[in-house]
Parts: sequence; C-alpha cells; structure tokens
Amino acid sequence: MDVVIIMDVVTLGETMVLFVPTETGPLKYIYQFNKHIGGAESNVAIGLSKLGLKAGWISKLGKDGFGDYIESFVRGEGVDVSQVKRDENHPTGVFFKERVEIGESVVYYYRKGSAASFMDESDLDENYIAQAKYLHLTGITPGLSESCCRTVYKAIEIAKKHDLKIVFDPNIRFKVWDDKEKMKETILDIISKSDILLPGLSEAKILLGSSDEKEILNTFLDIGPEIVVMKVGENGAFLGTKEETTHIPGFKVKRIIDPIGAGDAFAAGFLAGLIKGYTLQEAVKLANAAGAFALTVKGDVEGLPTWEDLLSFFGNEKGITR
Amino acid sequence: MDVVIIMDVVTLGETMVLFVPTETGPLKYIYQFNKHIGGAESNVAIGLSKLGLKAGWISKLGKDGFGDYIESFVRGEGVDVSQVKRDENHPTGVFFKERVEIGESVVYYYRKGSAASFMDESDLDENYIAQAKYLHLTGITPGLSESCCRTVYKAIEIAKKHDLKIVFDPNIRFKVWDDKEKMKETILDIISKSDILLPGLSEAKILLGSSDEKEILNTFLDIGPEIVVMKVGENGAFLGTKEETTHIPGFKVKRIIDPIGAGDAFAAGFLAGLIKGYTLQEAVKLANAAGAFALTVKGDVEGLPTWEDLLSFFGNEKGITR
Amino acid sequence: MDVVIIMDVVTLGETMVLFVPTETGPLKYIYQFNKHIGGAESNVAIGLSKLGLKAGWISKLGKDGFGDYIESFVRGEGVDVSQVKRDENHPTGVFFKERVEIGESVVYYYRKGSAASFMDESDLDENYIAQAKYLHLTGITPGLSESCCRTVYKAIEIAKKHDLKIVFDPNIRFKVWDDKEKMKETILDIISKSDILLPGLSEAKILLGSSDEKEILNTFLDIGPEIVVMKVGENGAFLGTKEETTHIPGFKVKRIIDPIGAGDAFAAGFLAGLIKGYTLQEAVKLANAAGAFALTVKGDVEGLPTWEDLLSFFGNEKGITR
Amino acid sequence: MDVVIIMDVVTLGETMVLFVPTETGPLKYIYQFNKHIGGAESNVAIGLSKLGLKAGWISKLGKDGFGDYIESFVRGEGVDVSQVKRDENHPTGVFFKERVEIGESVVYYYRKGSAASFMDESDLDENYIAQAKYLHLTGITPGLSESCCRTVYKAIEIAKKHDLKIVFDPNIRFKVWDDKEKMKETILDIISKSDILLPGLSEAKILLGSSDEKEILNTFLDIGPEIVVMKVGENGAFLGTKEETTHIPGFKVKRIIDPIGAGDAFAAGFLAGLIKGYTLQEAVKLANAAGAFALTVKGDVEGLPTWEDLLSFFGNEKGITR
Amino acid sequence: MDVVIIMDVVTLGETMVLFVPTETGPLKYIYQFNKHIGGAESNVAIGLSKLGLKAGWISKLGKDGFGDYIESFVRGEGVDVSQVKRDENHPTGVFFKERVEIGESVVYYYRKGSAASFMDESDLDENYIAQAKYLHLTGITPGLSESCCRTVYKAIEIAKKHDLKIVFDPNIRFKVWDDKEKMKETILDIISKSDILLPGLSEAKILLGSSDEKEILNTFLDIGPEIVVMKVGENGAFLGTKEETTHIPGFKVKRIIDPIGAGDAFAAGFLAGLIKGYTLQEAVKLANAAGAFALTVKGDVEGLPTWEDLLSFFGNEKGITR
Amino acid sequence: MDVVIIMDVVTLGETMVLFVPTETGPLKYIYQFNKHIGGAESNVAIGLSKLGLKAGWISKLGKDGFGDYIESFVRGEGVDVSQVKRDENHPTGVFFKERVEIGESVVYYYRKGSAASFMDESDLDENYIAQAKYLHLTGITPGLSESCCRTVYKAIEIAKKHDLKIVFDPNIRFKVWDDKEKMKETILDIISKSDILLPGLSEAKILLGSSDEKEILNTFLDIGPEIVVMKVGENGAFLGTKEETTHIPGFKVKRIIDPIGAGDAFAAGFLAGLIKGYTLQEAVKLANAAGAFALTVKGDVEGLPTWEDLLSFFGNEKGITR
Repeated sequence: MDVVIIMDVVTLGETMVLFVPTETGPLKYIYQFNKHIGGAESNVAIGLSKLGLKAGWISKLGKDGFGDYIESFVRGEGVDVSQVKRDENHPTGVFFKERVEIGESVVYYYRKGSAASFMDESDLDENYIAQAKYLHLTGITPGLSESCCRTVYKAIEIAKKHDLKIVFDPNIRFKVWDDKEKMKETILDIISKSDILLPGLSEAKILLGSSDEKEILNTFLDIGPEIVVMKVGENGAFLGTKEETTHIPGFKVKRIIDPIGAGDAFAAGFLAGLIKGYTLQEAVKLANAAGAFALTVKGDVEGLPTWEDLLSFFGNEKGITR
Repeated sequence: MDVVIIMDVVTLGETMVLFVPTETGPLKYIYQFNKHIGGAESNVAIGLSKLGLKAGWISKLGKDGFGDYIESFVRGEGVDVSQVKRDENHPTGVFFKERVEIGESVVYYYRKGSAASFMDESDLDENYIAQAKYLHLTGITPGLSESCCRTVYKAIEIAKKHDLKIVFDPNIRFKVWDDKEKMKETILDIISKSDILLPGLSEAKILLGSSDEKEILNTFLDIGPEIVVMKVGENGAFLGTKEETTHIPGFKVKRIIDPIGAGDAFAAGFLAGLIKGYTLQEAVKLANAAGAFALTVKGDVEGLPTWEDLLSFFGNEKGITR
Repeated sequence: MDVVIIMDVVTLGETMVLFVPTETGPLKYIYQFNKHIGGAESNVAIGLSKLGLKAGWISKLGKDGFGDYIESFVRGEGVDVSQVKRDENHPTGVFFKERVEIGESVVYYYRKGSAASFMDESDLDENYIAQAKYLHLTGITPGLSESCCRTVYKAIEIAKKHDLKIVFDPNIRFKVWDDKEKMKETILDIISKSDILLPGLSEAKILLGSSDEKEILNTFLDIGPEIVVMKVGENGAFLGTKEETTHIPGFKVKRIIDPIGAGDAFAAGFLAGLIKGYTLQEAVKLANAAGAFALTVKGDVEGLPTWEDLLSFFGNEKGITR
Repeated sequence: MDVVIIMDVVTLGETMVLFVPTETGPLKYIYQFNKHIGGAESNVAIGLSKLGLKAGWISKLGKDGFGDYIESFVRGEGVDVSQVKRDENHPTGVFFKERVEIGESVVYYYRKGSAASFMDESDLDENYIAQAKYLHLTGITPGLSESCCRTVYKAIEIAKKHDLKIVFDPNIRFKVWDDKEKMKETILDIISKSDILLPGLSEAKILLGSSDEKEILNTFLDIGPEIVVMKVGENGAFLGTKEETTHIPGFKVKRIIDPIGAGDAFAAGFLAGLIKGYTLQEAVKLANAAGAFALTVKGDVEGLPTWEDLLSFFGNEKGITR
Repeated sequence: MDVVIIMDVVTLGETMVLFVPTETGPLKYIYQFNKHIGGAESNVAIGLSKLGLKAGWISKLGKDGFGDYIESFVRGEGVDVSQVKRDENHPTGVFFKERVEIGESVVYYYRKGSAASFMDESDLDENYIAQAKYLHLTGITPGLSESCCRTVYKAIEIAKKHDLKIVFDPNIRFKVWDDKEKMKETILDIISKSDILLPGLSEAKILLGSSDEKEILNTFLDIGPEIVVMKVGENGAFLGTKEETTHIPGFKVKRIIDPIGAGDAFAAGFLAGLIKGYTLQEAVKLANAAGAFALTVKGDVEGLPTWEDLLSFFGNEKGITR
Repeated sequence: MDVVIIMDVVTLGETMVLFVPTETGPLKYIYQFNKHIGGAESNVAIGLSKLGLKAGWISKLGKDGFGDYIESFVRGEGVDVSQVKRDENHPTGVFFKERVEIGESVVYYYRKGSAASFMDESDLDENYIAQAKYLHLTGITPGLSESCCRTVYKAIEIAKKHDLKIVFDPNIRFKVWDDKEKMKETILDIISKSDILLPGLSEAKILLGSSDEKEILNTFLDIGPEIVVMKVGENGAFLGTKEETTHIPGFKVKRIIDPIGAGDAFAAGFLAGLIKGYTLQEAVKLANAAGAFALTVKGDVEGLPTWEDLLSFFGNEKGITR
C-alpha cells in the first residue's frame, strides 16, 4: 500500500502480554490466568481509535506468539501498526497482575531484555511522525533502557521540528527505573519540553514535593507545558493554564473492578476532546468519563469507551455541548 | 487515509460468531462455550494474509458487540476490512458447533435475517474490486438471500470486466438453501463463470452425480473453469487442467481436532502458491499442507498456517522448490 | 399415562437458551459463555413449582439440542411440559446477556423465526387450559408474531369460557415489536381482559404516560383488572383494588447480581400467595421476598426461591401469618 | 395428579452426584471438577426414557442441594420420580472419578450412611411396581446396607407376585460390600430369581470361576434366568437361551472417552429392543450400539443415545429390521 | 532424619478437601467446583507458619489422592506433618461450601467414617507434644467420634504434664455432634482445663446463655482460663483477664469474600503475637488484622497473612510496637 | 530444628513457574493458562521423594508470589528445601509451553536475570552436600550464567571431596546458552567428571556426532563415567558399563499427553532403583516405567509415579524382582 496517512496522534512505547488471575488473592495460590494486553501507550492509541480518531503506535515486539497476539490485537482495534517492528532475538515482554482485596494490587514485570527495550533512534521514521498532530509519550519508555531513552528524546526533537504538540503522562513506575534520581530528573526534563502534561496527584507529589493542587499546577506551568491536567482519582481533575485553574469533578462508579488503565483512558478522552474541537473544560469532562468507563472492566483496554458509549453516557449526564 | 491498495485477492461473504463447546458430547448437556469466528470467505482472507498476501473482505455485520468482535478480529489478522459495512437494524449472525465422537459434528446456524443476508449490489465498490487479481467466492453466499445472490452475480460481472480471475469453492451447505434444486442450478451456473474451481469430492457427487474423479474433473473443465482442484480429504487432491489430471497426495495428521475450516485453508494455500509463482502442482502441495495445519486446531481460523509455518513444515517434508 | 391433572396455573410463551458471559464487560471481548435458560413465562412456571404449586407451560421448541435442554430443564423443575411441542423446521431461540458495570445490561435476541414464533391457536388444547385456575400471560408473546398474538387471544377466550383468572404481566420488550404503537394498543387491550395486572412502574409510564402511582393504579383498575400490583424495584410494590391502594415495602439485598428475572419471581411469589390462601397484602410481601431472592443469582431461574427458602426468610423477617 | 401409569420398566437403586475432573491425572493435582450424576439404575432408567420408553426410578435422596439436583435431572430426562423419597437426616451420596491415561480409572465413593442406604421395604409401593412390565435390579443395591438388601428381596417378591420380568445386572462393586463372600452368595441368589441376566465377562469369572463363554452361559441358564446376555467389551456380547448361544459383535469407537456407564447403556438398549418387539438378537445389536454411544462422552448419562440417534446410527450400519 | 524439634504450637484435628463453587447460588445449579483444603486446626498451623512460627499438626488422612493432596499442601506451607498418619481403610473427608448472597452460606460435610474420625490415643506421641509450648485444640475434634474425644482428653493430659499452655477455640459445629447436650457439656469441660480461650460471641451465648460481654468474660474466667479473647466479628474482640476487660476494635474490610476461616486466622495472629513477645493487647490487634486478611479470599487458608503482610499492614495503620 | 539429615540425593538448579495453555494451538490465540512448576532438577528431586527417597534441592527463588508457590510446592512434595534461598532483587523465572498437534511443542523462557541465575559458590553449604550419597546435575545450570557455571563446578569439587557419586543429565537447551561451542565444551567437561551419565540419543548426537548407540556408549565410557544410560524414547534405553552394553526396552503408552519431563522421571526412577539396591538392569526398567508415567500427564511433575504406582505397574508387567 502506498499510503498518505494523516494521524491525529502518534505514540511510542512498550506493550506486553498481561496475565490476569481469574480469582482475587495472593498470586501464590492462583491456578488460572487469562491473557490480555497492556501498555500505557497502546492503551491510549486504542482509546483514541475507539473514540474515532486516527492513532499510530511505534513499538518493537518479539518474533513470537505473544508478539503476534499483540500486533493483531492492536491492529484489530484500528490503530496503525505499520511502525511496529519485530525482533527475532528478544522476546515480547509479559507481566502479571495480582488482584487483592486488601492492600494494593501489584504487577510483576518480565520485561528486562524485552524486544521493546532494544528500540533505538533508528526505529523512528521522521516522515511518519511528521504527518501527525500530537506526539503522546509517557515516563515509562525512557526508563526501559538507555536506547529507549534516546529514542524518546529523538521523537521529541522530530515532533518539535514538525510542530506536533507533545502530550506527556509521567506514569511513574519505580520498577522500570534502576536509578530513582535519574527518573525524577528525566521526567522533569521531558515535562519542560512538553505542551500538555497529564500527571496524577501522587506523581506530582513525587516530582515536586508539594500536595497543593494550585501550587502544583503553577509549578508545572512554569516548567514548560501550556496545559496541565492533573488527575485526582474519583474526584476528577484539575485543569491549569496560564489563564485559569479549575477543578472538574469526576464520575462515581458503582464498583471499581480494576483501577489500572484509567489514566490512559483519561488521556485518550482528553485528546479526543481537543482534536474534535471541544473546549478544554469539556475535554476534561470527556476524559473523566472515559476514565470512569475504564474502571469497570478487568483488562487494561477492554473498558475503553467508544464515542457512542460516551455520547450515550452524556445523554444521561447532560452538559457536554460542542 | 487516501490509499491506493493493490489487493491480491478480494472475497465476499458472511462471517458469524462461532460458539465452540468446551467439551465433546450432545449440545444438550454442554455448559461452557468459547467465542470464535467462522466464515468460509474470511477464513480464506485470513489464511492468505497469514501467508503474506494482501486480501480484502467485503461483508456486512450488525452494529453490535459481536460485529465489533468480528471486525476487529479480521482486521487484526491483516485483512483489509474497509469494505465491511455495519447494519444498525440486523444482528451479526451466530452459530454453534456440536462436537461429537460418534456420528458427524453438526453446526447450528442463527443467521436468518442477519446483517450479512441484507448485502446487495450497492455494497460493492467497483473500484475496490477492480484493483485486485483474484475474486474468491463460495456457494454459501448466493444461498443466504435473494439480494446476496444478486450481489455475487454483480461481483462476477465486475471481476470479468476488470480481468480478475474468479476462484469458486462450492461449499455446499444444505441448511442455507430453501430450495435444493435452485442451489444446484445456481452453483453450477457460477461454476460455468469461474476460472478456478475448488470442490470437495462429496460436493462433486451432489452436483454431477458421479464418483469417478477423472470424469468429475473433465465434466467440470467442460463446464468452464480452466483449473479444477478437487479435495479428497486426507488423501490430498486431484488437479485437473485441459492438459492433465494428477493426484497430489495429502499429509496425514496424528489427531484431527476439527475438520471444519480445512477446505478454506486449502483454498488459501493454493491461491498463495499461485500468486507467489509456484507451479500448479506445488500450489496444490502447499494447499494440502495448509489443510493439514487447519485440522489440528479447534476454531476455524486459529489453525491457519503462516508462511513461516509452511516453510518449516516443508523444511522437513522436502520437495517444494520455487 | 392417562392423567387427570389439576393445574394451579397454566402459562404460555417462548423460552430460549440464555448465554451468560463469565465476565463483566463489553460482549466484544468476552471469551467464555455459560448456558442457562430464560423465558418470562417458564420462569414463572418454575417459580410456582419451586413454591409447591402445579404449573403447566405451553410452548414450542426446535427439534434440536437446545430444545432438548430446555424441555428437560423445565420438566426437571417439576413443571408440566406435556403441552410443549417440538418443531422440526425451526430452531429454538437463543439470546445473550451483556453484563456491564456502567450503563445498562443489554440482551441480544436470536429469536426471529424461532420455533416458538410459529405457535398458533391449534397448539392450544382447550381441555388442558380448562382444568387450571389461573392463566398467566405476558406482553412478550403477542409481539413474537401474528400467530403468537392470535394464540394469546385464543387462550384468553378459553380462559374466560372456563372461568380461569387471567394474570397479565406487560413485560414490555421493545425489541420484539416491530410496531411500537401496535405494542401499546395490544398490551392495553389485553389488560382490559385481565383479572390481575402486574406492571412495573416504568412500563406503566410507557402505557399511561403518568408517573403518579395512585393515578396509575386507578387508571388500570378502570380499564379492567380487579387487582393491580405495580412493582417499584427495591422499594417493593403498590397494591391497588377497588377498595384500597397500599404501598408494601420491598426487601433490600446486599448485592444485586442480576436484576433480570426478578419480575417473574415476583409474579410467582404473588400467585403462590394467593393460591395458598394468603391475603393480598401477604401475597405481595411474599412476591417482594421472591423478587429479592432472584436478584442474587446470575441466571434467570436459579435464584427463584423454594417455599422452604421463603419460610426461612420470613422466620427471620417475621410478620407473615396465614 | 390422580394418575394411572403404565411403566415399561421400574428400577431401584442409589444415585449420587459425580464429580469429574476437568483434566486427566492423579486426583492429588486436579484443581477443577464438574458436577454430573451417576447411578447404574437411574442411568438405565434415563437410557430407556431417551429411547422412548416409560421408566420409573425408586430411590431415596438427601434433603439437600445435591438431592435437588439429582431429582430434577432425572425427572428432566423423562423418568418418573414419584417414588423418590427425600431424607432430612442423611445426605445424598457423592463420588469422584479419577481419570488417568495409565492404569485403571478409579472412583472414590462418599456414600456410607447416605440417604439411599437407608431405603427399606416401607419405601416400596406395591401398586406402583405392580403396573410395570419389567423390574430392573443391580448387584449394587443389596450391598449398600442390610435394609437395602431386604428392599431388593421385597421388590423381587412383589415382581414375582405381579408377573413382572426381573432383569438383573450383577454390577459387582467390591467397594460397597464389606463381606466378599456374602456378595457372591447374594448375587448368585438374586440371579436364581431373575428372568434376564446381563453380566460382564469379568463378573462371570468372579461369580463362576470360569472363563469359557458357552460354559458360563449354560451355568447361568441352569441357575435360573431364561435369557443371559454377557457383555464382552468392544467385542459385543454373547446371547444365551435354552435354545441357542450366539455371539453378536459390537461396534468399534474411534476414541473411548469414558468406559463407565456403557453397561447401563447396554441394558437400556437391550430392554428397549425387547419392549419395542425386536428379536433377541436385534435387541442385543441395539444394546451394543447403545453401549458404543455411551463410551464417547465423559459423564455417565450424557452419552446415552436417543431412539433417533440409534435409528440414524443403523441407517449407516444397516441390518436392523423390525 | 533424627530430629530435635522445638515446636511453638502443636495442634490436633481433622482436615478435609474443600470444594468451592466457582459461582454463587444454590448448590443445585452449580457446575464447577475448585479443590481447596479446610480444617480449623491445620488452618491455625498454616497461619502460624506463615507468621514465622513452628507449628506441628497431628491428624489422620485416608491413603488416597485427597489425603496426598492435603498432606503435601500442609507440609508445603511449612507445617510439620510428621505426626500425620495415613489410613488404608477409611477415606479422607470432603466438604462443600454453598456460597449464597441471601441467607447464610452453608457447608455440607462428608466426614462420617473418615480416616480422621478413627484417630485415638495411640496416635499421640507424648515426646512430640512434650517439646512444644502451646497445645491448640478446637471443639470440633471431640465431636467427631468417641475415640477422637478420648484423644483430645489424652492430649490435654499430656500437655498439662509437660507444662504446655492449652489454647481452646470452641468452634461449635452442630453438624458434627449427635447429642447437643453432650456437646455443651464437653466443650465447657475442656474450657475448664484450658489456659487461653478464644470463643466467638454467638458461641458464648450458646454455652452460657448470656449476651453481656463483660459477664461472659467473667464467667469464662471463673471456669478456668486465665485469658479469654472473645471475637465480635468486624468489631474486633474483647480481651478478659483477671486484671481487666478491654475492647480492641477490629479492621474494616471493603468487601468480605468469605467469612469462613477468619476465626482461625485470628487464633494464629493472637498466638503469634504472644510467642513473639507482644503484649496481650498488641496480640489481639495482630489477631484482628489477621482475621481481616482472611475475610478477603475465597478459600480457608489462602487468605492467611504472612508476617510481612502484617508488617506492611501496620506500616499504614500504625500503633503496633514491640 | 537442629537436624542431622542424610540425603540420598542432592540436586542443584533453577525451577520456574510453568504456564500451560488450556487448549492446543498457537500461543497467539490461547486465552487461558494454568500455573504449574517446572525445572529439571526439582523434577528429579520430587520424583525421588515420591519414590520414597530423601532428596534435597539447592536453588534460588525470587522473593515474590511465584517464588512462594514453588518453594511451598517442592517442600510439599517432601523434598528438603532448606538450601533454597530467596532473592529480594530478582524475580522467579517463568516459562510458557505451546502445545501443538503439528510440529514440535515449544517453550518460551522468561528467565534472563532471574533469581536463580544469580546463584554462586557462596550458595553452597559444603556440610549439606557432604552428607548425601549422590549429586545430581544437569547441563542447564552451567548455561544460566557465569556464576551458575562456577557453582556447578564448585558442587562437583565438594562432591568429589566427600565421595558422592555424580549423576549428570546433559539436558541440552540451546535457548539458555549464548555460545553453542562453549555449551558443548562445558557439557563434555562435566561428563568427564561424572560417575553416571544419562543422555538422550539426540543429545549424544549433538555432543559426539555419532548415531551409533554402541559407539556412543563406549565413547562416553572412555571420557569418564562408569555407567551410561542413554534414553531412546519409547524404545527404552541403552545401558553401558565397562562390562557390557544392553538394550532395555521401554513401555508403550496409549496416548502421550506431554513428553516434557519424561527424562527427569527416568533419572528419578533409575536413581531410586540403584539406591534401593536393584541391579543396573532393573534400575533401568524402573526408569523406563517412571518415564512412561510422566508421559501421560500435562505438567512436568504431576505425572511422576509414586513407589506404589510402580509396584502396581510391575504387578501387571511382571519381571522386576529384588
């Protein structure tokens, strides 16, 4: 196919096979696991595609059955996977969720030496990125390896050259970083190069040491981004721009099945809102709704809403108008 | 995307959600079913895509969760689904397999009034078909409804106009035809318009009343096609052309898990062979191998081999050379 | 068997195989489904049988494995199935539940052209109906087909001739009616012929356009029935007769597992109360309790309480005396 | 119901809940089990009912969920369960199958002190037995308890008084007998009172010490029965009467899924043949076929064929004519 | 191995295979069950081992696959099983949980005549018990059989001779006692011989007829034990000694998955606290926490916390200091 | 515990969590996986323990739920795990089996950087090894890492010092070795230091380049070992000593469920035979039988026979006498 694509959003990162226990309780005693997929960036790309936008995902997978699965799944959801490379020599990463009713749910990664951790600058096609409107990045990728970190910086460079907006979600994962100080430093540096920042409150605390929402927003705005949307769980989000700081309340869900992936749904909802021409506040409202949907399903991507889902959700909840 | 696609094969037909019992035995007593997909034409398209070719699938699905599933699954396998329409008013068809160890496995269709049965000529994009090399059709589609029958004839007309080769698999399904005489008549008529015919032996008997392989091949060749490849189960296939009639032996499988879908794998293997430039006899050998793979897995499409699978299979079996 | 049966209640309607996903979430992503049965009228018949009464169910099933399953299941629960016919030419209907945590759970029917939709007046045995005390009907059956609608009217005629009380549950299902106006008209007409009416509040709104409980009860009483019991979810029910209008509070359940089938449990509880000689108010209390039981189990019939279940329930809750 | 029943066959014995491992291998490591039912006599009753005959089953079950399950299941299959009593004080028996690929599959009983072991003469209704044509008994019931043994003898007495034919299947189960000598003695004594005897070859060896088929048949015929049909596994059966001794070959099955229950299917097929007016040899042929069906399914009763199944089986196999 | 073991706690009692339904609802309709283990005393032993202490379990199991499973499982958890005997002639007991959302969850025992019920005094090794610090007993064991009752008394005698502290949990199970009066009498008698008593509030009511916590504690203290810790569900526990009576509040759990086994976790937590040198009040706090963990998992032992779990729990909850 | 242990066999190596697909077919399409354990050395240790011997396993596991599982499982099987260390910083390895009906089943390792790969000489306790009779090693461990390779050599040194017999199974796994030449060299070097060698025929071909059984045996005997037992699949094994070379035929299995783990069962059977005092030829016969058992079960260790299993197997097969 000789194709002229116009992507709304291009994103870059690792996706792994996710094994979800069929029961809650310590991993030690679980007998059955179901195969799903997980990866912050492909979650966002899938979320955007389900909301009707064009998203492309740049990544590397092992040349193995798990890589086949992920590639087919993501393509199936309508995301462009033409930039996904396959590596004969390194495996597709996998991870396991432990679902407990007491304490925090934990994930166990098997991604050291994975195909994705070998991504480097040569995996980026400048022309591919150039034709998009937004570049979406998370703080996970630079922690995967030296070459992944360089790849992120190269992508930023290309984006800036071609006037893409850079959207950054810190997505702090202590487990992928060997050096916590380097983590903080790198993430703050990428924030300084971003246009839109989507941190969670606890991440902001780690990065800035402050718990005051307004202070956090202002500090981030000073560092670089022109839009900061900070997620505060079920309470929704705070929106900060040079002009104003607003709290936009979230939507309560009867029963939270799985909190993981809600931040990615939020990012997809917000970007979809922006690209479809909604106001910033409306976009955050859409993001809150998308996040609520994601809380209700076990996997990372299965709960991501379609645009029809959101329309029917707001058909009841009112108040979103173009 | 403004795209100039060059499809190797375009196919047209209904795909349904297939529910496979987790145990063998009468449907009456089965408690658990797993969701898969099934549809002769999409099976072939997926088979071709896994073998490295470009295939497009024209169809109609309900605007429902099952339609979402099928569309994503087929797209995920690399098949072009740009010509798959979604119908708000009619559901995606479903069917159930009964897997028994004594007697024949039976399928139960719920496809009356399905979205696909409402396909008509207006669902065909002449430009889309025109750019392909082969049009693949089966004898199922004309039996689905009057409008489906007209659609098949319209597709043949377009194919002939644009010099596509027409590949036809009779795929006789008594359950989809109300009038058995009309079935025979229609299928024979389409055969007369086809370039390549891929019948099974039992189908040939139904259509021609003969059990003599050579006689069958010659009769079919007289009716119209220039190539007839008749499948004779584990014994492989008979290849007939104006020039010669050959028997090409099949490959034995240790344990047949599910015979359904093997014919579609055969078609994919044969077409892949032709398009990749193999001789007719080599193409049949590839078809036999692809059919053997399909016998070893429960669903219709999960057993379809990749090109790597075939290469490694013939690495052991020898004898296939370009 | 040469049998003289005295049925407490005879009911008439379609039952289908119900496939319930093993997980919550969009149908698109569900892999496993479990087989159950569902059908408002057989739910009520089974509910009555579990409460110790004699119930007969008139229906038509396909001559297939799913029909075998339903016939055996319903007979197994103690319901008389001597009036269930089997159809060689049309299949047993099936349907799928989508269980979601956000938005409404939806069902997907595959019942167009089902065996049951071909029921007609000739399937009614006047002698069989004549020996019963109550005829139970729902608003689903007249919507299935023209012949089903005639069958309902014929059953009403027979019931009136032999002095059976007619119990009607509107059970509005938009999906089975092609013409919504005809639906309203038909249901109101059947109400005018009924002795006991068991609507839900939202159904009453659709039929009468009012949300005022007292006004609704009085309007219905004016149309024909001498007893109206309107269900208002967890809040219980309103009982209306010529003499009085009372609210009878319901029973809270810790966790609602599946709301579908609760109305049928309610009908069974109410009829069981009446037939066992309880007062109207006590019968509604029993109905509320039966409805609460049904909320706690996934399938339609598995949660229907036995009489021992209700006795032990009221052993704790007090206040029901003969 | 005031009923005049004419049963073809009445049988008497214990039925238990059967737990079948989802995987093969030592019970120690199996995690999942599926619930089925098992009991030689109810297997036969269900087999007869599926073949179109009227069968009644006399038994006792606990007043518990497992008893509810068995009662509903057996009733659902069309067997008359009006003589099944429920015991408040003793549980329904359960047992577990161990399915192994090496060595013999073993069953583990939990039936000591079960409700059924408390059956006694007072549980027999003379009028009920009197109206039947055949009384079916196995050698399991007299081993369950003293009172069960007395019940079997009382049933024989009633059968003789009312001219029922007594059909006896030794069904030797060492695990239910405390005293092996008493077992042999009792079973031989019941054989002497039987009209039709249906032993297996290995059972004959245990009882008579001989392995010579003709000698075995003649010895049994001398002891009492007028018809002896001895099962010899896949090789079919030997038929012995005063007049002749014949070997009637069995039907091979591609893959034996579970041998347990095949003898009961055989008994049902044979009795159905006799009652439907087939010759003895035809009846054995039907019995062989029924046994073959039962081998192909995991549970005890799910593989029992319907009459339609047998007709279609002999449609291929030929040779059975009324 | 010639071993000098110093056990912290030795316990004595029956453990059975526990079958847990995969779904909630009446046992009648459940198809799948998962295999776990259950037994109050081995639960406590496992709980202690997970908390870092040395525990030994004296018991008898059948020489069967279920016995193999239990022995391996308990040994695997680090409990000393050198005193577990295997019985060729009697089976390992089994039981089934019914998990319902309305009413009480019920268990169904199949333990009559089990291997464990044949334990007697000769199964006790005085030297083994002598080397331990605590003897843990429950009120279940003396109800299993006469010989089990004698075994408990013999164990008490040995414990007193060697200065072990006797810890007693009444664990009233009506189903194991034929004579309810004897049950009360025996349990009160064992209480009079115990040093530490761990009753539940409802048990105390049954034994003493009082509902007043202080009165209960004082009455028990008068009977014999020097420490009484009475569990009051989610409200925690009351601690009574000669010196004082204190209420120590419990920990709320978001969702109680399965209440069974929480009392055993409590016992393990309390004993671990004592043995590790915590104060009585701290030990009760640890016991409350251990009980909370056990509520969140389906099986009996899978939810028992490790010492690391408790440390991290109190890392958040504060207030426990050595 | 202050313990004087006398181990029959001590072994050393990595064990991982093994995920087995519930269905056959490409990993890409599998949804459910069950958790098992796998590791050649712990397989042998478990096999020995089930055969009644004392075995100790030296290893390192992550301080995570999967490590907890493996440690408990192996201890549960009666293997001494006192020398298993837990690593806070590196995870327990995992691997996945792909079960296919066509081509070879493949395993996918996630063991790079696992806890076990960080074992080094300091993890060996000389006193622990010194008290055993045999040291069992495989060719997997030296390939895991440099430090693992040194650990193996150190263990050999200790064994030689304390007169343990060294049993070596080459267990060639190309996937764990970066350098194939080094693999060959290392394995041949360890063979030269071994007393008993247990290669497979295909491994012998890789190492020696020969396919002639006698030649292979003699070459190996020349290199060092005094006993060589070479496995030739279902054909059993060749036994070679200085004195003689014998072929000892294997036992056919009806259906091979999973070939993986059969070599470990063979090793356990052979060592058990030797230690129990059987002749070499009898020990190989026991090894063949143990291997046959292992073929019939899906996991690696669940099919390992107990001594009772072997006795009852040879009860039928005759010919093994002490």
